[in-house]
Amino acid sequence: MDTRYIYLDGRVVPVDQAAISPFDIGLLRGYAVFDLLRTVSGKPFLLAEHLQRLRDSAEELRLTVPVTDGEIADVIDDLLERNGHEEATVRLVLTGGVSPDGLTFDPATPTFYIVTQDLHEPPPSLYADGGALLMHRRRREVPGAKTTNYLTMLQKRSDAEAIGAMDLLYHDGGRIYEAASASFYVVVDGVILAPKDDVLWGTVGTYVLETLCSDHEVEYRDVSVDEALAADEAFLTSTTRGVVPIVRLDDRLIGDGSPGPITRELIARWRSVLAGR
Amino acid sequence: MDTRYIYLDGRVVPVDQAAISPFDIGLLRGYAVFDLLRTVSGKPFLLAEHLQRLRDSAEELRLTVPVTDGEIADVIDDLLERNGHEEATVRLVLTGGVSPDGLTFDPATPTFYIVTQDLHEPPPSLYADGGALLMHRRRREVPGAKTTNYLTMLQKRSDAEAIGAMDLLYHDGGRIYEAASASFYVVVDGVILAPKDDVLWGTVGTYVLETLCSDHEVEYRDVSVDEALAADEAFLTSTTRGVVPIVRLDDRLIGDGSPGPITRELIARWRSVLAGR
Repeated sequence: MDTRYIYLDGRVVPVDQAAISPFDIGLLRGYAVFDLLRTVSGKPFLLAEHLQRLRDSAEELRLTVPVTDGEIADVIDDLLERNGHEEATVRLVLTGGVSPDGLTFDPATPTFYIVTQDLHEPPPSLYADGGALLMHRRRREVPGAKTTNYLTMLQKRSDAEAIGAMDLLYHDGGRIYEAASASFYVVVDGVILAPKDDVLWGTVGTYVLETLCSDHEVEYRDVSVDEALAADEAFLTSTTRGVVPIVRLDDRLIGDGSPGPITRELIARWRSVLAGR
Repeated sequence: MDTRYIYLDGRVVPVDQAAISPFDIGLLRGYAVFDLLRTVSGKPFLLAEHLQRLRDSAEELRLTVPVTDGEIADVIDDLLERNGHEEATVRLVLTGGVSPDGLTFDPATPTFYIVTQDLHEPPPSLYADGGALLMHRRRREVPGAKTTNYLTMLQKRSDAEAIGAMDLLYHDGGRIYEAASASFYVVVDGVILAPKDDVLWGTVGTYVLETLCSDHEVEYRDVSVDEALAADEAFLTSTTRGVVPIVRLDDRLIGDGSPGPITRELIARWRSVLAGR
């Protein structure tokens, strides 16, 4: 494990001394939210956006992040220095805290911890060749919150791998939502279509669409399964993976089955951001 | 806390020494199943059925309970003796174990723990007057598994309380499924209707329908929202609550709004079981 110290409930402690109670409602009832950010050149990237999303997630579950953004930033700096990662992911986890009866808990005493780990990026071939998604009927249970519920994603992981897919694409038969662990967009006639409702707001996705795409039109609206299958291009965005071309949904190729020009352009722009240019 | 010892990964330990890793996939990704049973006269009740359901839940998530039923029975006896409950609940929790990257885990090293606590039963008035449920559109994400995902139940708890409801009744607009923490049945013209598909198999529910109801007809089939609203009687079953009359769904009374004769009969029979008669 590349993590030697973590932050837990007010203290930075060696990882082998960090103990979560077996009565934690995050464990007993899955009542927890989290967020995950990455460093760029060793500094937290989009920190304010991730912390805002964490607070929004918490509010959706009637929880409150118990420390200020400034304190969190200091803790992250401390952990990054102690753990000595080259580039890191930073995971912030907030649960309802210890539940004496497995049902009730006091929102005033949540469990809040922060973990930094070495960042592992996907292989270059994924960006050159593109990836596939397995279509799966599901809608995020609490779309406004990044909860820890990834049951379906993990349960269907081997099904996805069996068809060479890197993740699931959630849909309801009529419209598409998002990938299980990423935002998902399609390009039709040069316009980027971004599913708007019932999906988690993507921090990297929003950054890419709003900051790196100013010369492309973006429509925030429902996107049908048919539109997605007939799109010219598709891509996903995520914190650890950036912009990834999606060239196949189940066994249906998107466009000609190779990464499209707008997607490639966004990948190049994202790489410039990572390189500090 | 009425629990002094718990079982965790092969050992019975004082509860304050029981530490779950912050990297547990049950916490990071909600990848966990559990079961909950109660004692009757100090002995585990329907133990074999609960352990079978736990193993079925585990299999659905491609996990395996790492110890035998006999070993689990011995551990429960040990915990009940050490913790000295009058009557107890016994909670068995199984997660995918520690995940080094927040995504992958080794099913060969799950986290498995067992907690006993004092049993708290609902007040007698609930059985005399009946309870209400708040209707909510949702289907259990993985119906074949009793997972730890109770996000919606906890998130909507205050909405339920606001209308005097004890729990949620999940439905899809067309048919009803189950309560968030209990099985749910209705009685129409003397026949008990039991939703069959896309619901968790209820251990106490099955016991009540198959062992205590042999003189009543039971139909296992889909039950529509309309049938539920027009039913003569309704009741839920759960481990800690037994048989509870449900006399209102949202603001719609079931029957005349008081517990019906078949429900009252089942409550009496359940009480006889608890009394060892």
